[in-house]
This record gives sequence, C-alpha cells and structure tokens, in this order.
Amino acid sequence: MLSKNQLKYIQSLHQKKFRQQHGTFLVEGAKSVQEVLQSDFQTELVIATEAFYKENVHLTERQRTPVEIVSIAELERAGTLESNNAALAVVKTKENRPLLAAPNEIALILDDIRDPGNLGTILRIADWYGVRKILCSETTADVYNPKVISASKGSFTRVNWWYGNVADVLKQSNDEPVGKLAVYGAFLDGEDVHTLAFSKSGYLVMGNESNGIRPDTAQYVTQRVTIPRYGDAESLNVGIATAILLDNIRRVTQ
Amino acid sequence: MLSKNQLKYIQSLHQKKFRQQHGTFLVEGAKSVQEVLQSDFQTELVIATEAFYKENVHLTERQRTPVEIVSIAELERAGTLESNNAALAVVKTKENRPLLAAPNEIALILDDIRDPGNLGTILRIADWYGVRKILCSETTADVYNPKVISASKGSFTRVNWWYGNVADVLKQSNDEPVGKLAVYGAFLDGEDVHTLAFSKSGYLVMGNESNGIRPDTAQYVTQRVTIPRYGDAESLNVGIATAILLDNIRRVTQ
Repeated sequence: MLSKNQLKYIQSLHQKKFRQQHGTFLVEGAKSVQEVLQSDFQTELVIATEAFYKENVHLTERQRTPVEIVSIAELERAGTLESNNAALAVVKTKENRPLLAAPNEIALILDDIRDPGNLGTILRIADWYGVRKILCSETTADVYNPKVISASKGSFTRVNWWYGNVADVLKQSNDEPVGKLAVYGAFLDGEDVHTLAFSKSGYLVMGNESNGIRPDTAQYVTQRVTIPRYGDAESLNVGIATAILLDNIRRVTQ
Repeated sequence: MLSKNQLKYIQSLHQKKFRQQHGTFLVEGAKSVQEVLQSDFQTELVIATEAFYKENVHLTERQRTPVEIVSIAELERAGTLESNNAALAVVKTKENRPLLAAPNEIALILDDIRDPGNLGTILRIADWYGVRKILCSETTADVYNPKVISASKGSFTRVNWWYGNVADVLKQSNDEPVGKLAVYGAFLDGEDVHTLAFSKSGYLVMGNESNGIRPDTAQYVTQRVTIPRYGDAESLNVGIATAILLDNIRRVTQ
C-alpha cells in the first residue's frame, strides 16, 4: 500500500514542473515497465499489483528496485492511464547531453512538435528505422510526459534525445568547411522522395503540426523534400510523414 | 437554442445503436462541417455558433440545411469534442453498397481494425494516396463513430466504404478464371516492400492491431509483404504501416 506522501509524489509527476523539480518521470503499463527495468534508466520505485510483481521479480531484483504492492484501484489513482492492472515505475530522467549526427548517420530534428501522442509515435518510428538521435526544439512536447512515454511503446528506452536550439546546431553543421551534412526538411514544394538520392549522413527536420518548419530553422535546410500525393487529403499527420520519409531514406541508403 | 428533444437526439448519436436506428451520424468542428456541406452527404441539421453560421451561410443555404444557432457551451454539451467553437452537423448515413477493386485500382481491406482513431487515420491516408474503396470486416470499428469522422479530417467525404464478409469477397476474386487480382497482406515473413514489383490492381489487406490478419482472410492473400525494420521497435502502428505500404505501391505503379 502507498503512503499519502508516495501517492502525492507520484501524482505530482503528471506535471512537467514537478518532473523537472524531482528529476523523475512515470512509466506505466506492463510492457513499458518491463522494458524500462531492462534498460539503462535508473528506476527509483515500482508500484505493482501482486500478479505483476510475482511474474517480474527477476527484473526488479536485477536493479534492486524498491517495490510497493498495490491494488489496481491504487495504481490507477496514482498514474495517468485509464486502465492499468500491472505496474508503474518512477524513473530518473537523463542528463540533457548535446547530440550530433555522426558520419553515415541520419538524426532526426523535431522543430516544435506539440502533440505528445505524435512525439511518442515518432520515437517508436525512429526506433523501427534505427534512428538513435532526436534533437528537439525547446518548444517540442516534453518527452517525459506520460502520454509520450506510453505512445512510444517502450521505444523511449532505445532512442536518445536532446532539447535545445536546433537552428544553432544546423548553423554549425552548415558552417563546417569539410564534411557538411545534408539537412532534409519536409515542404510542399520539395523534391519527390520517391526519386531523390538521399545521403547516408545528415538530419531530417520535421516541423510543427499546423505551421511546419519555422523560418529560423528552415533557412538551414539544404534539400526540401515532398511526399507525393495521389488523392485529395490536404495533409498527412506528422508521425505518418516521418515514417514515410525514413522509409524512403532507408530504401535508398541501406 | 436547442430544444430538449433535439439535444437528446444529438447526444443519442454518440452511440452506434442510435446511429443505426436513426440512419444519421455526427460531424463536428469547423473544417469537417464545411467539408460535409460541400460533399454528396445529406445534412439533416446544423447547429452552429453565430460566428460560424455567418461565415458559412453560403454552405448551409446550398443544401437548404436547417440551422440552429447555439452557444459554445451548448455545442460542446451536444457533441463529443472537448472543445468546439464552430459547429456540429447531423448527417444521413449512406447505404451499405458492395465495393470491388476495378482493373488498375488498389482497394483497401480492413480485417478487424478495432481502434476508431486508427480507422480515421487510415481514411485520411487512403484519401492522400488516392484509394477510393475501403472494404471493412464486420468487426472493424464503425466508420460513423465520431472519433473516426474527426480523425479522418474530412477525408470521410472522399472515400467509400462497405462492411461485410471480406473473406468472401477475396474468395470470389481468387476464383475468377481470368483477371485474378493480387491480394497483398502485411506479415512478418513477407517479401520486402522496397523491392517488390507491386501490381496496379488488387487489394491491400491490413489486419487487427494485436493479432494481424485473421486466418480466414489470410488464406486468400496471394503475396505476403513486409516493411523492413532497421532498428528494434517490435511493431509499427497499423495506420503507419498502411501509409508505408501505399507509399511503396504508388512509387512503383504510378
């Protein structure tokens, strides 16, 4: 059973302010908790139903993670999921370390992606396509938001992210005298992604759900790209667009 | 202002049972209502804020649609959206007419897609890729669910659907002595979609979110296909997978 203070602490982590203050975030549901316990994240506390605990004791013992056994009702009161009959973990956030695309590597830049569901989906897609670095503008949704973690289906344990001034990163990349990297950005008037000879190295920039890539960032895009349309929908969701772009990049570079 | 009976009627359409009983469904939000008023759907009633009504009177007059002016609070009470400051339309459902893929046409088959958000996303993707026919198993989510209509972003006005026994449709297609169509289905052990020479005619079958294509349907798949994975995510969301498959089909056939 949870103490009043434990419950209050866990519930406070629904909010960004308290996640930042405590340096911890929530991971919820059977699969995500299992994945985080097997990752390099440090888990501070697991609250779990007896059934989940018994089946996963080898995982909590591996990191010597403290476990509180709770009822399903307590679990759902503490967390954000509508239904959760398994577990919730309180996990330490990672240091915000700068990331750069290495040679022969495509890194993703998220320029003002606001919707947590979209961000979580993008983590999962990045993980599918072997993209390991995601550079996020400061205005992009908080990756530690429980909705992002949940939508990523465990992929948050396998990709790395950094929050900061993405335009500055691209400016520096553009200024490199040698080894300048390609910067791909999705626009309506770009080159057809079905025929473009993508480079193995560089950045793929995805922009805001309504307004696309901001001008400050767009000025460093070296190659505008477009997903061809064969029907009448006005646009594609940013998660879908990210998947199609990465699929085309991998198709020609691997 | 809405009468008690009008409010009760509109609220009843949140549920499939009453949508079927009345033969009507809800379309919510500025853009979707504008699109439905310009489509071949018959609109029974529009409830709108004064601001929306004034800007769109040319659309409601076109079909001589009755309009009730309401407050934002009334609009949100009647509908399903958390916030709606524009309008809601009560629209007549269409007859469930059988659909078949014509020569040089790719039609989509949805075999037990349960999540309304996924179904709405798939309508939007079909619309982007010019797919005009969607055959749904009876167990697939109801396309008239307000969540589907909303997630489709207006694309529900440009694609056609049919609900019925999809295995029977494929069986008949397989039995054709001439002009037998390709039936593509997504599996883990199929041909790589990056190198497959897709046909211009046939069906693309997408299966259930957890269990994939059911055996009854799978037996009629003539070509198993697989989206290559370059990282570690276990799976892709069915909407994302549909988009990537259609992108690859269009790339080689158009």
